[in-house]
Amino acid sequence: MKKTAIRNKTGPTIKEMIITPIAIVDPPLLNAAGLHAPYALRTIVELITDDNISGISEIPGNIDIDAALASARHLLIGKDPFQLNAIRQILENAFGRETAAQRGDAPWDQRKLVHIFSAIEVACLDIIGKVTGLPVVEILGGRMRDRVPFAAYLFYKYEGAGGKLAFGIDPAAVGWPAARQAKALDPAGIVTQAKAMCREFGFQSIKLKGGVFEPRQEANAMFALREAFGPGIPLRIDPNALWKVETAIQYGREMEGLLEYLEDPVRGQENMAAVRKALKTPLATNMCTTSFDDIPGSVSLGAEDIILSDHHFWGGLRASLELSRICETFGRGLSMHSNSHLGISLAAMVHLGAALPQLPYALDTHYPWQWDEVITGGRFTFEEGAVMVPREPGLGVELDRPALARLHQNYLDCGLTRRDDQVEMQKVVPGWTFNPVRW
Amino acid sequence: MKKTAIRNKTGPTIKEMIITPIAIVDPPLLNAAGLHAPYALRTIVELITDDNISGISEIPGNIDIDAALASARHLLIGKDPFQLNAIRQILENAFGRETAAQRGDAPWDQRKLVHIFSAIEVACLDIIGKVTGLPVVEILGGRMRDRVPFAAYLFYKYEGAGGKLAFGIDPAAVGWPAARQAKALDPAGIVTQAKAMCREFGFQSIKLKGGVFEPRQEANAMFALREAFGPGIPLRIDPNALWKVETAIQYGREMEGLLEYLEDPVRGQENMAAVRKALKTPLATNMCTTSFDDIPGSVSLGAEDIILSDHHFWGGLRASLELSRICETFGRGLSMHSNSHLGISLAAMVHLGAALPQLPYALDTHYPWQWDEVITGGRFTFEEGAVMVPREPGLGVELDRPALARLHQNYLDCGLTRRDDQVEMQKVVPGWTFNPVRW
Repeated sequence: MKKTAIRNKTGPTIKEMIITPIAIVDPPLLNAAGLHAPYALRTIVELITDDNISGISEIPGNIDIDAALASARHLLIGKDPFQLNAIRQILENAFGRETAAQRGDAPWDQRKLVHIFSAIEVACLDIIGKVTGLPVVEILGGRMRDRVPFAAYLFYKYEGAGGKLAFGIDPAAVGWPAARQAKALDPAGIVTQAKAMCREFGFQSIKLKGGVFEPRQEANAMFALREAFGPGIPLRIDPNALWKVETAIQYGREMEGLLEYLEDPVRGQENMAAVRKALKTPLATNMCTTSFDDIPGSVSLGAEDIILSDHHFWGGLRASLELSRICETFGRGLSMHSNSHLGISLAAMVHLGAALPQLPYALDTHYPWQWDEVITGGRFTFEEGAVMVPREPGLGVELDRPALARLHQNYLDCGLTRRDDQVEMQKVVPGWTFNPVRW
Repeated sequence: MKKTAIRNKTGPTIKEMIITPIAIVDPPLLNAAGLHAPYALRTIVELITDDNISGISEIPGNIDIDAALASARHLLIGKDPFQLNAIRQILENAFGRETAAQRGDAPWDQRKLVHIFSAIEVACLDIIGKVTGLPVVEILGGRMRDRVPFAAYLFYKYEGAGGKLAFGIDPAAVGWPAARQAKALDPAGIVTQAKAMCREFGFQSIKLKGGVFEPRQEANAMFALREAFGPGIPLRIDPNALWKVETAIQYGREMEGLLEYLEDPVRGQENMAAVRKALKTPLATNMCTTSFDDIPGSVSLGAEDIILSDHHFWGGLRASLELSRICETFGRGLSMHSNSHLGISLAAMVHLGAALPQLPYALDTHYPWQWDEVITGGRFTFEEGAVMVPREPGLGVELDRPALARLHQNYLDCGLTRRDDQVEMQKVVPGWTFNPVRW
């Protein structure tokens, strides 16, 4: 049968890859690893084809990952952005398959390959969408929903708004709601924050980032939230794996019936499995089962009920859909984890969230805590806690180049090159050190 | 941020679904369930959009599945063929999730939902490819290879060519190679068949469909193949789950080192796991782990090393890619099973085979045993046992409408409505009955 090449002869190839580290204003949020720096780092990746179609993506900022991305540049120039399977193979050959151990103990992930493949895949999907006229969600098999729901993400927090805002020198700071500048260091502060955030964004689920104060205080905050919001709002707490097994069982039992799920109460699959046996409340994780290599252990141990995926850490949107099938196959739920991020990551999360066969839980997002934006047209809006799925081809967001330049200058000025919440915490509490199992 | 609908306003919708059962000439091939009828049944599905783009697919023919497909027609008319996730959900809601038990004991699968979703998904992917200008392989993440290798699929066989050919009334029959009309009922006949098939198609791996004669004879055939072809050609045998555990261990040990893999020696995951513990030869299956619901049992028991997927039975091409990730995650290999089929199924298999991250084994295909074709331009050709991946948009094959009409007439004339190899066998060996565990 005679076969004639068609698209491949005229298909686009990647002619340029631009890696731009940026620093975005971040409030003084507290977590198990310490304190958010005044700036959160992100890296914006832009791939440009020979016919000048641009695809963009956003990943957590880290100078080592940026360098690894740059070292992959020569592997990607000249490649067809439609060949995602081959690109994955090329990157895997170049960077090796990372072990779960390389993830590290911090609440955020530190592996290279998954970040790099996420950056490249999302930018390629943006290009594919623009070439074919399809929103990314439709490249992922189509939209199951038009709105993707997110949860209010509460943090214990010092007073102030972070970055230049924290130093009172950003004239735009007056626009940032006072409620989000307020401190929140006890249950009452958390309830006030929750009310402000739900009023502003319409969230209908609430998560507290715990692992900051001793469990008694944090459990009290959860009961205070239930008291303030009534029974209709799902609640979750994430102690970031800082609790001992007996602590998790004690407070887990106390909060039985209160929580939609308990996220990463303890560290490691064995400990998660032990807590899970003792509780009726479902356990969720983005710290004990964080890669495909962790799935067999998760299955044999029964480590959790819900995996909080993150396309930046699982190697992209298509891999996240594969994870969804694995979760369905093994009776696990799937939802989404987040770090401080801007609208490009949010757009990718929303396209994926819209494509997922089931979406039983509102997704995590730090987005309300961010002030800056790097896309044109301003920041995404939330209605009743949900984001409308973009309908333009690709991700549906475009780079705001003046904003990108400004945020890159922030990066150069702020001197940060990787996230280190312990160093930031030590500026406030001298001698403070991260302890992976604390209570 | 202002978002404007783009594609969805002008996107295609399905305006027609045409289900055409066909009967294709099939030789008198023997297997565990009996004898192939003179015609194999296939069903051709055509979806036509409101802008007259046609997408096609082919699935195993079965009057009950055809009726179920027809009953889904009203659910599909008016739907956007890009919305594969939503279509899967609609069909799952309509037909329910089938249990693994519904697969049945025969070497072929009898579930409805997976067939129906495969038929609809492949036809939709063909449409998506035509709309976007992409070959299906590129909708699946791009081609990992340009040629997809297949294995010679040997059968014990009575003399003749099947169908009208068998009755000597098809004038075209003279074109069918005498070698494939010859009987093959002993090791010498199998070797002759293998040589003819490898000479004609260039296959570089060989599989024997066993479960026909007692194991001594079939093992002898494998040793005769090794003797005839030397050590460079991978060999496999598939007793179609007809052996007892002790038989499988005895002959498995005897053939240790001879086989690339041993396919479904026994019935059920527990028995497969018992055989697997006793042998070094990898075990493959398309009978003990045949659905996502079977995966947890496969993992906990360690039932096999290689899953022989089949997009007709696993619910489509995208589901098969998800299966590939599951296999990678749990250290299993992946290859492909086949039934008697024509070029539309072959095209789908080739697009999927080209997209799979790894392809360590040559795929199964019955294609050389078929005589008819339903696509324009004639039958696919094999070079060194491999098929070139089509480069046209969609599947890259088009319906030959006169051939379709003729093969549908065959269907009406032949009177067969579902596959039943036992009934055919009884015409040759009166009183013969299928026995799911025979030796």
